Amino acid sequence: MSAPRLVGVLGGMGPLATLDFLQRLLDISGAQRDQEHVPTVTWNVPQIPDRQRALAGGGEDPLPAMLQGIARLNAAGATCIAIPCNTAHAWYGPLSAHSAAPILHIVDATVQALQAAPQPSQPSPARIGVIATRGALSQRLYQSRLEAAGLDYLTPTEQELDTLFTPGCYAIKANDIATGGQLLAQTAEALLARGATQLVMACTEVPIGLRHAAPELLALSVDPATALAQACLRHWRQG
Amino acid sequence: MSAPRLVGVLGGMGPLATLDFLQRLLDISGAQRDQEHVPTVTWNVPQIPDRQRALAGGGEDPLPAMLQGIARLNAAGATCIAIPCNTAHAWYGPLSAHSAAPILHIVDATVQALQAAPQPSQPSPARIGVIATRGALSQRLYQSRLEAAGLDYLTPTEQELDTLFTPGCYAIKANDIATGGQLLAQTAEALLARGATQLVMACTEVPIGLRHAAPELLALSVDPATALAQACLRHWRQG
Repeated sequence: MSAPRLVGVLGGMGPLATLDFLQRLLDISGAQRDQEHVPTVTWNVPQIPDRQRALAGGGEDPLPAMLQGIARLNAAGATCIAIPCNTAHAWYGPLSAHSAAPILHIVDATVQALQAAPQPSQPSPARIGVIATRGALSQRLYQSRLEAAGLDYLTPTEQELDTLFTPGCYAIKANDIATGGQLLAQTAEALLARGATQLVMACTEVPIGLRHAAPELLALSVDPATALAQACLRHWRQG
Repeated sequence: MSAPRLVGVLGGMGPLATLDFLQRLLDISGAQRDQEHVPTVTWNVPQIPDRQRALAGGGEDPLPAMLQGIARLNAAGATCIAIPCNTAHAWYGPLSAHSAAPILHIVDATVQALQAAPQPSQPSPARIGVIATRGALSQRLYQSRLEAAGLDYLTPTEQELDTLFTPGCYAIKANDIATGGQLLAQTAEALLARGATQLVMACTEVPIGLRHAAPELLALSVDPATALAQACLRHWRQG
């Protein structure tokens, strides 16, 4: 008899996004009572050096702190691990190599969700607009996996990143949802104008902005955090 | 040099209340950036036999499942443990006896918060109205500790439990906030009419109901979940 399944969550990047992810896992489980919810153990320790800065070549290496979390989640009995942070997946390789419990990849989960999503009724095949930070795009986190899955995609131009996406993201972070929502909606519209038929909101600010400024676009959009929660639910139900 | 402090949370009772508790811990920390938030490891495994039923003498013993969570939190490196569930504290003794990390008691934290709260400007000493489930009252979780602290208190009468508090609680659980809020506000008003000068909302439905139906009473009220989060914050800052 194998040990009961237990979803480990490597959180802290950041602590609010971690709670948002846990809330989604509750929301999608369809549980009628406490005992039907997915069991989780969550390492929400935000004392991790800044990932963006490290990727830009300037800061302290966050890998040791992430590896400590992975080790503790394994010690606590996790049978799989989810990391609700796109950028942290830049370190997926070394984290996986040090974890007995398999680590679910947020982009693999997103690709699965894209393949399962109803296709827009158009003559041409789906084309996926990836809304992500410059750092995530430079790591090719999404591009490499979309290519491997044979999915067509496009990304924001340098100019769209500079004038729409990046200021939009920072406006949301500064809690100016009106300005940020408009800029992020314009980023999405630019991708749709250039042929995107679906969107991936690969940055936690994007769903906040679109909910406010362009809720009609959410039906075309896949949220990687929700896709990762769905992957966790599948893991638990297989157990 | 001692290991860095890490707050362990024995959750799952229920899974939503656990997230609500973690959210409060974020809210009260006053953090300006991710790295300033309290580090936590949370065992949110709701596959625990029903505590109310067990206390009423009818159900499976929840203690083994709770002890497993305590053991895993210790294995993950917790330096203190919080249990954001009033009823679970009926098992505080055996849980504490099996934990290397000290377990913060939700009622001790509440008593501390009561002693720190500004006293209403009245000639007579403070009198605390305890709004709690019949199960929690029968365990004397609050009464014993309030007496030990020399604090005067009163509890709902049997009739108030039957006609106001219990149906109010179940209305909130069934998402009828209007009905539930009114019944819980009436419970609070009954305690105030009999001399209470402060209230303890020792059941997670109470703050939901009062926020809706009698927000003016919140200023007189102490919420044990917030008090427990404050105790966690103090533990972390001492480290």
